[in-house]
Amino acid sequence: MKIVNASIITIGDELLIGQVTDTNSGWIARQLNSAGIAVTRRVAVGDNADEIRNSLDEEGEKANIILMTGGLGPTSDDITKKVLYEYFGGKMIVNEDALENVKYLFEKVFKRPITDVNLRQAEVPDVCKVIQNRRGTAPGMIFNKEGKIYISMPGIPYEMEGMMEDSVIPLLKEKFDLPVIIHRTILTAGIGESALADMISDFENALPPEIKLAYLPTYGMVRLRLSTTGFDKQTAEKEVDRYFKELKLLTAAYLVTDVDDPLPVVIGKILKSKNKTISTAESCTGGYIAHLITSVPGSSAYYEGSIISYSYKVKETALGVHEKTLNTFGAVSEQTVIAMLNGLLSGLNTDYGLAISGIMGPDGGTEDKPVGTVWMAAGNKSAYKTQKINLRFNRKRNIEVTGMIALNFIRKFIVEH
Amino acid sequence: MKIVNASIITIGDELLIGQVTDTNSGWIARQLNSAGIAVTRRVAVGDNADEIRNSLDEEGEKANIILMTGGLGPTSDDITKKVLYEYFGGKMIVNEDALENVKYLFEKVFKRPITDVNLRQAEVPDVCKVIQNRRGTAPGMIFNKEGKIYISMPGIPYEMEGMMEDSVIPLLKEKFDLPVIIHRTILTAGIGESALADMISDFENALPPEIKLAYLPTYGMVRLRLSTTGFDKQTAEKEVDRYFKELKLLTAAYLVTDVDDPLPVVIGKILKSKNKTISTAESCTGGYIAHLITSVPGSSAYYEGSIISYSYKVKETALGVHEKTLNTFGAVSEQTVIAMLNGLLSGLNTDYGLAISGIMGPDGGTEDKPVGTVWMAAGNKSAYKTQKINLRFNRKRNIEVTGMIALNFIRKFIVEH
Repeated sequence: MKIVNASIITIGDELLIGQVTDTNSGWIARQLNSAGIAVTRRVAVGDNADEIRNSLDEEGEKANIILMTGGLGPTSDDITKKVLYEYFGGKMIVNEDALENVKYLFEKVFKRPITDVNLRQAEVPDVCKVIQNRRGTAPGMIFNKEGKIYISMPGIPYEMEGMMEDSVIPLLKEKFDLPVIIHRTILTAGIGESALADMISDFENALPPEIKLAYLPTYGMVRLRLSTTGFDKQTAEKEVDRYFKELKLLTAAYLVTDVDDPLPVVIGKILKSKNKTISTAESCTGGYIAHLITSVPGSSAYYEGSIISYSYKVKETALGVHEKTLNTFGAVSEQTVIAMLNGLLSGLNTDYGLAISGIMGPDGGTEDKPVGTVWMAAGNKSAYKTQKINLRFNRKRNIEVTGMIALNFIRKFIVEH
Repeated sequence: MKIVNASIITIGDELLIGQVTDTNSGWIARQLNSAGIAVTRRVAVGDNADEIRNSLDEEGEKANIILMTGGLGPTSDDITKKVLYEYFGGKMIVNEDALENVKYLFEKVFKRPITDVNLRQAEVPDVCKVIQNRRGTAPGMIFNKEGKIYISMPGIPYEMEGMMEDSVIPLLKEKFDLPVIIHRTILTAGIGESALADMISDFENALPPEIKLAYLPTYGMVRLRLSTTGFDKQTAEKEVDRYFKELKLLTAAYLVTDVDDPLPVVIGKILKSKNKTISTAESCTGGYIAHLITSVPGSSAYYEGSIISYSYKVKETALGVHEKTLNTFGAVSEQTVIAMLNGLLSGLNTDYGLAISGIMGPDGGTEDKPVGTVWMAAGNKSAYKTQKINLRFNRKRNIEVTGMIALNFIRKFIVEH
């Protein structure tokens, strides 16, 4: 079986000083994998001609397809196009479609005067095939050298994503006879990575070599992924599904979901199937849970809203928590989250509700309630459950982990009620 | 001037199929840069012995320091330690401190029975120096070969970050005579990257070679960064600050901030200096703005809370928007965001308020109000301003861009009122 493989080169000084997080290479990797192209390496280099050339040499030796992002902007720190022009030869010409696109964007969309610098974005080496950019001014470029394909795209995620979907993936599918890569994923909660490994060690040892198992810990939960590659989709799926069924049985006690959906999508599907609504009352997570839920397209079908009660005052005025409850038990207490939940359910009148209060740090901890102490309550109009957790991370991770644990907590409550 | 440079190798199949976003290499790059170590390359490879060895050879040729993360977990898909043991030689021994740490974590923190697999995490090659892991079970390892330093750390961000801060950075500072790297950054809004480049082209052309200028577009705004490297901190700062002052004057009309702070931090500092409070009423952004504001440690000093009114019902019950306003003008209208703002300010009783309503997509657009239409209102008890924006991205980016534009909108209002 001939595997077509790719390297991704992301270009930009900002990646090497860590000023921006590179989400492009992960996104590209997902698209290529779905299309049956294995990504074997990802490299990030600076806006430096030697480093870019060097990476083209190296990755060109290792992969069939070399995808690049970045360094196509109009300003002088963007040098990728110049380096590619020198590397692949040819002469610079104006691409008429790209020129028309630049003019259109400035006249009709940005409504700003066009400059010479902008117009030069339409120039490309004549040895490349141009990928039109419907979402920005810099065109993409495809070069061929010694049987390898080199594709250069802008570093702005939204522009790169449009090019990949509209042009690059269809082109690669046409050009190569691609295998299918099948992944099956379960999400487990309530068991550690190594205990899980012990539990399924017989299963893992008996897996045939063509089926790979990976453990992916995520926010106190563990994802397990089975993968295989083949040229016949049905055969590959049948093979992997047989083991997947066994894996689900073995891990049933800890199984959250057997589809590779994020938790907010899982919850959305359950609520839609039950035709029920939900609302949230957040203190310490400050809107993060609401954000996770509303990141899902169509979430307005089941999500009504949230009261983010960061202060005592808002807990009292917007959720009806009694001053006495707050003063006697504190904002981070079982009594307070129950009162928040009751205020939420009666105020916003949804079928289910989730209330959270905790201390995310770095300040605000006490001896009794150190940073990382969180109370949560999940309920409907006739029942509720509470849970206390103790985290030991920094603020950012405390918020993220609390969000995921709380979502799993309300998921279980919804399933059971 | 001898520059000490580093390569970062992140290891894990999950990085190559894009199942997780690599935030480690960006975080490490920031720490190294602050310490005066230039990162020249970042490479991601799979859990594959050949690929790992290959990357050790290649990066070892290019850099003084090679930092690795990932593949140190207890399960069989984690092979980094085995590969390093074969690569650097020596024999495997139990590190007593690491063993004690594993036992402590299982007995006192995880409260789970310890397995053989867990205990084996304390085994390391005897040729390495061990970095203790205070936040997890897998110890870090430092190897030396041909004058180069190789450092292996866990892939779990929280554990890696602890090791870097406690052990790796102090060790590198001691070992190398490091230069200082000085960055100065401004954030601009309301002007495109190329128009900005035109505006400051004389300034840019006159910069001495040791001062670098970079353009970093971010959510419809542009960051400009001046950088220099030197061995005397004061001289380097003086040099860069002279140009930075000029840059700030040139871009004054578009300047948001001259410190490299995220916008929520900028707003927090202004509010604290004015001793004022703020609250938010979000519809389409669904808690994202509240999350951005509350990501800042100490934000409870000025942030009271938010009403996330995702449905008509919550806009009416929790913000007092009249049904007639919603039915006549629609949820996405100037009238509705003004009503939301008024309801917010009277309900939560803060000094400033911000209200947002829009259509993030992919569904919900109409001919009059296509996906990407957003209304926002910023105000206090005596004045308000409204703004309409039209975005043309996907749901995720529409939410993110709306969040940043809205934060800049309320920032301007706070500064002016």
